[in-house]
Amino acid sequence: MNREELVNQIKLKKTFLCVGLDSDIEKIPKHLLEFEDPVFEFNKAIIDATKDFCVAYKPNIAFYEKNGDKGWISLKKTIQYIPSNILTIADAKRGDIGNTSSMYAKAFFENLNFNCITLSPYMGFDSVSTYLSYKNKWIILLALTSNKSSLDFQNAKLKNGLHLFEEIIKTSKKWGSLKNTMYVVGATQAERLKEVRKIIPDHFLLVPGFGKQGGSLSKVAKYALNSDCGILVNSSRNIIYASDCLNFAENAKIESKKIQQKMSIILSQSDFLKK
Amino acid sequence: MNREELVNQIKLKKTFLCVGLDSDIEKIPKHLLEFEDPVFEFNKAIIDATKDFCVAYKPNIAFYEKNGDKGWISLKKTIQYIPSNILTIADAKRGDIGNTSSMYAKAFFENLNFNCITLSPYMGFDSVSTYLSYKNKWIILLALTSNKSSLDFQNAKLKNGLHLFEEIIKTSKKWGSLKNTMYVVGATQAERLKEVRKIIPDHFLLVPGFGKQGGSLSKVAKYALNSDCGILVNSSRNIIYASDCLNFAENAKIESKKIQQKMSIILSQSDFLKK
Repeated sequence: MNREELVNQIKLKKTFLCVGLDSDIEKIPKHLLEFEDPVFEFNKAIIDATKDFCVAYKPNIAFYEKNGDKGWISLKKTIQYIPSNILTIADAKRGDIGNTSSMYAKAFFENLNFNCITLSPYMGFDSVSTYLSYKNKWIILLALTSNKSSLDFQNAKLKNGLHLFEEIIKTSKKWGSLKNTMYVVGATQAERLKEVRKIIPDHFLLVPGFGKQGGSLSKVAKYALNSDCGILVNSSRNIIYASDCLNFAENAKIESKKIQQKMSIILSQSDFLKK
Repeated sequence: MNREELVNQIKLKKTFLCVGLDSDIEKIPKHLLEFEDPVFEFNKAIIDATKDFCVAYKPNIAFYEKNGDKGWISLKKTIQYIPSNILTIADAKRGDIGNTSSMYAKAFFENLNFNCITLSPYMGFDSVSTYLSYKNKWIILLALTSNKSSLDFQNAKLKNGLHLFEEIIKTSKKWGSLKNTMYVVGATQAERLKEVRKIIPDHFLLVPGFGKQGGSLSKVAKYALNSDCGILVNSSRNIIYASDCLNFAENAKIESKKIQQKMSIILSQSDFLKK
């Protein structure tokens, strides 16, 4: 999916919600365990219930790897089930030497056909360049993450006056383009979004940490919305575990719709929908 | 495997070689493709041929994920096949928020029963703390990697005078202990090992980049050997792809034995074997 198609979907559905599929076999409703592939059944129901209210799905790869080869099958079936007009993000946070990265790129971009992958920038340009050679695929680089310890290193002050996350954004924005590179900036760091936007006013940002982790939607929008919307705000647990009863999908629908409605108001108050 | 057991194995076998199982289905000898699980057959033969000359195996997870659920099965069988007196390292380079890290820990430490996992430090303490709660398991943090672009950020000069990789080592060495934390320092950065050893004289280091990537064994030993040996030097492609004929395993044996013999001389010239 290219940038234009993504922006059109946001416009059409009046939402910039990304639903995180952190689907844990130990947390999904118990009645699903009688199915052959409970995680896939769960995801299928969640996708059916939420697809009108989001523009992206983000399976968190750890939750599938925990289930070994079966997890990989659930992941593959899930990706195939997601409608093609919805962006798919492999939340993998990989980062390795070029030779190894090309294997991860094959795994996620070719075999599973994800649109995007999250990557750690720590190993530098040659650890992400392979992914950039794919047309209409995206890398999403970790910049400022939503966890408390993100400040341990990401916020380190460099000799040149920048924080490490700023240096990483400043350097890496030259690697790709607005059409194949996004950044992760946690909603818990909403005020820092202002600084991020000074360096990359036009890039798309993937914003986790909204919901259970405490980030605020209005603050994120205030600091990060741009003329192409430019943000995908992720919510995982708040939506997919809205309840653990038989009606879990209905509750996921209600939660995702609530967020979509807030987003619709935010977008209608911005210049984005008027373009 | 705990530190004492690892040190004993190094002493016994007079080697600190780690064999990297970057087993690519497109590169293994063609005659193996007739087996049900060619990658596992390849690994089995490589393990049989090299197990007397190494103290660790390091499957590179990307090469297995490239093969999807089948890759995961090959990985599981490989891990089960490795003798229990040889250290197993999941070269995964993961790094995520705590909730997600606990899923990766289950995948690699519990389900696959790896002894060690390589991790990216970029997200800070709470992204690695989960792994440290496992007894006799190790985290191996990326410090200074062997690729050219490692200098993009790892070498960034901080306001406090340290390079980023030094700051990361200095901070993270307090998270765990000598008994559960190692660091990745590339053989291509041999001279920097001196600086690393000033901060962590006693930790074990995992040193990739020897062989195809151009690192020198004698330089690595010169700067990094400590009284417990303290280094595991990895070689992947040089050994496992020593030839692609019917006798590939025999050639892998010859290559790994050559390295072991060099290591044996290095160790015999050090104080380590005299202890």
